Amino acid sequence: MPVNLNLAPGIAIDAIELGAVAAGIKADGSNDLLLIHLPQGSTCAGVFTQNLFCAAPVTVAKAHLKKNKGAVRALLINSGNANAGTGQPGIDMAKVHCQCVADALHILPEQVLPYSTGVIGQLLPDELIQAGIKQSAQSLGNDWPAAAQSIMTTDTKPKLTSRQVTIEGQVITITGMAKGAGMIQPNMATMLSYLFTDATINTANLQQALDQAVSTSFNAITVDSDTSTNDACMLVATSKKVAMDNTHKQWPDFMSALSAVALDLAQAIVRDAEGASKFISVSVAGGKDTAQCKQVAYAIANSPLVKTAMFASDANVGRLLMAIGKTENSELDANAIRVSIGDVCAFERGGIAANYTEEQGATIMQEAEISIHVELGNGAAAATVYTSDLSHDYVSINADYRS
Amino acid sequence: MPVNLNLAPGIAIDAIELGAVAAGIKADGSNDLLLIHLPQGSTCAGVFTQNLFCAAPVTVAKAHLKKNKGAVRALLINSGNANAGTGQPGIDMAKVHCQCVADALHILPEQVLPYSTGVIGQLLPDELIQAGIKQSAQSLGNDWPAAAQSIMTTDTKPKLTSRQVTIEGQVITITGMAKGAGMIQPNMATMLSYLFTDATINTANLQQALDQAVSTSFNAITVDSDTSTNDACMLVATSKKVAMDNTHKQWPDFMSALSAVALDLAQAIVRDAEGASKFISVSVAGGKDTAQCKQVAYAIANSPLVKTAMFASDANVGRLLMAIGKTENSELDANAIRVSIGDVCAFERGGIAANYTEEQGATIMQEAEISIHVELGNGAAAATVYTSDLSHDYVSINADYRS
Repeated sequence: MPVNLNLAPGIAIDAIELGAVAAGIKADGSNDLLLIHLPQGSTCAGVFTQNLFCAAPVTVAKAHLKKNKGAVRALLINSGNANAGTGQPGIDMAKVHCQCVADALHILPEQVLPYSTGVIGQLLPDELIQAGIKQSAQSLGNDWPAAAQSIMTTDTKPKLTSRQVTIEGQVITITGMAKGAGMIQPNMATMLSYLFTDATINTANLQQALDQAVSTSFNAITVDSDTSTNDACMLVATSKKVAMDNTHKQWPDFMSALSAVALDLAQAIVRDAEGASKFISVSVAGGKDTAQCKQVAYAIANSPLVKTAMFASDANVGRLLMAIGKTENSELDANAIRVSIGDVCAFERGGIAANYTEEQGATIMQEAEISIHVELGNGAAAATVYTSDLSHDYVSINADYRS
Repeated sequence: MPVNLNLAPGIAIDAIELGAVAAGIKADGSNDLLLIHLPQGSTCAGVFTQNLFCAAPVTVAKAHLKKNKGAVRALLINSGNANAGTGQPGIDMAKVHCQCVADALHILPEQVLPYSTGVIGQLLPDELIQAGIKQSAQSLGNDWPAAAQSIMTTDTKPKLTSRQVTIEGQVITITGMAKGAGMIQPNMATMLSYLFTDATINTANLQQALDQAVSTSFNAITVDSDTSTNDACMLVATSKKVAMDNTHKQWPDFMSALSAVALDLAQAIVRDAEGASKFISVSVAGGKDTAQCKQVAYAIANSPLVKTAMFASDANVGRLLMAIGKTENSELDANAIRVSIGDVCAFERGGIAANYTEEQGATIMQEAEISIHVELGNGAAAATVYTSDLSHDYVSINADYRS
């Protein structure tokens, strides 16, 4: 059961057409292939996994995006098979599928970006996908919820949401979808996520906007510290409405809306993480820089002992100290560090806080949403990371499911 | 149930006296306090946790060891309470207990090194420990198995073993004990482990020997990637037998025996890890240096997705690739990397190996002991790391037990 996963509804972006079909990759017969047709004039930016064994579609999508300087016309996404660890045959097949899309939509194959998610180390079922592409090209429409559903793997709920912002009198919409669930500690990227806007923004500014939005959203979550081979996050601007760049006086308004969509989707991934029963925010302040704050926050968020304590609703201050302390920040002063659970200070001046009681901690830990605050006393930087707990269901899901 | 935990028997070291008693720290009434009395002339070396929040006894033991240049006369170890996160009162109490031991044994308090393991963030029960010290000082003897039993927390079996080596016609014994179970990824140290020999070795050479033995044993294991606040590994030489230093022609023989004891105990900790059903060796060769090999090996050994696959006996090559690939070694060539499960090559040249079948992998994964081999193709260094799987029992133990 996801933890408080209630996203604002997704709003369709005009001129974008989507087609989700059951190509037969997934054994259960659910939709597993999504074709997204973008209008002429669209610009596109992307961030991709840093995993050395990045999947074939990641390699091809990066190359196509670069070659076209962001002038992309179609996204092809399959779930159920990651096309990773498949060597040159996997890359060749991804290119063949881009050609199939190009044939169906009368565009160039280099204008198509492919994405895959699912089992690693198996070749895609070529014929099924080719047939699925033809079928999806014939069923293009504007069913965004069905699109968000079709990219799921172990997700229990689709993740689709929107924000709107008025710029120069025009209502600009930003709509995003994402899939997540496990193998989640994105590194300069995320699991699959697609963000769209109807504004007109050049590729360079679009990339900057995406990088900025991702740093505090998809690059601030972890389920299990594992970075997928297939992570990608894309931002498309259809160029149908007002033109703007990063010098526009309302650029901060656009960035605020974009960051809100990205953060909502990133948090939705954690809320629907494999086996999650708690949604945990770990905020670290007083660091020398953002990297130090993120390092400490991730040490807490990734600690199996912290995560099992969260599952048990155990206000285990000792495990929080252990996780902070293992980060090898020799310039930190243990006596300057404060640790709070919710609003209650539990540790300061090298020992358990004088007024802290186990009962206070236990009360806070009963909630499904828990916030941990750490003050390092070492500078002015801050960062927040979001994670889930480590439960029996996480073990069951990952012992049973072949990713 | 520990995985194939069968250590060679421990052999008593002459002139060392041990006393284990139930001081009442543990609620179940089992032995929880151990006093080890070392003969005059003993030398002692130690490595300690690098965790920023190192426990009060770690701070005191390091200071006493340094002050006495290794001329130590007693070790005091309690289980059930870590005396960590306890600030100055915790340090003051550890010093008081050293004074109690000194009074009972007619030595100096600085000749006593204290150690604690158990729950973090609570002060020790002072009166119970003081009474326990007196009782243990009166019951000193040579019951080494009882000593190894008394330092356990969530361990299911005591860990005690020995090796002997003949040097200049004298039989030299090396005997060690350890406790482990969880919060295990030692960093330049280990969980509590005590190694003893009857040879005569000066402190500097003893420290060098310990550092070397630890690097391939206690610093090559992980259960859950979490580094304890209380880790310590000590090596004591009673100076009763042959004198040697690192220029002695049989020094390599001594090192070989010492390393064997350390490796057996380190592996015993993994075999008896919380919830372990598999014992997994991850060896990485062809790296540019040992650090790179260890980094890749730990990325595999700590991956929750690899560990749950191991629990499920799933030969999941994709998760191994994911874990190797997330280490940010940009100079590695994915096409040069080979991955073997047991003796079977499963991945090479960027794809699943031509002759590999799922059936081969499945057969290997049925065993309780599994070896993973990675060839990086990037140099001549190698390293091996030992770990356990991630099971339902790990979650249960750590959701139920307050460490």
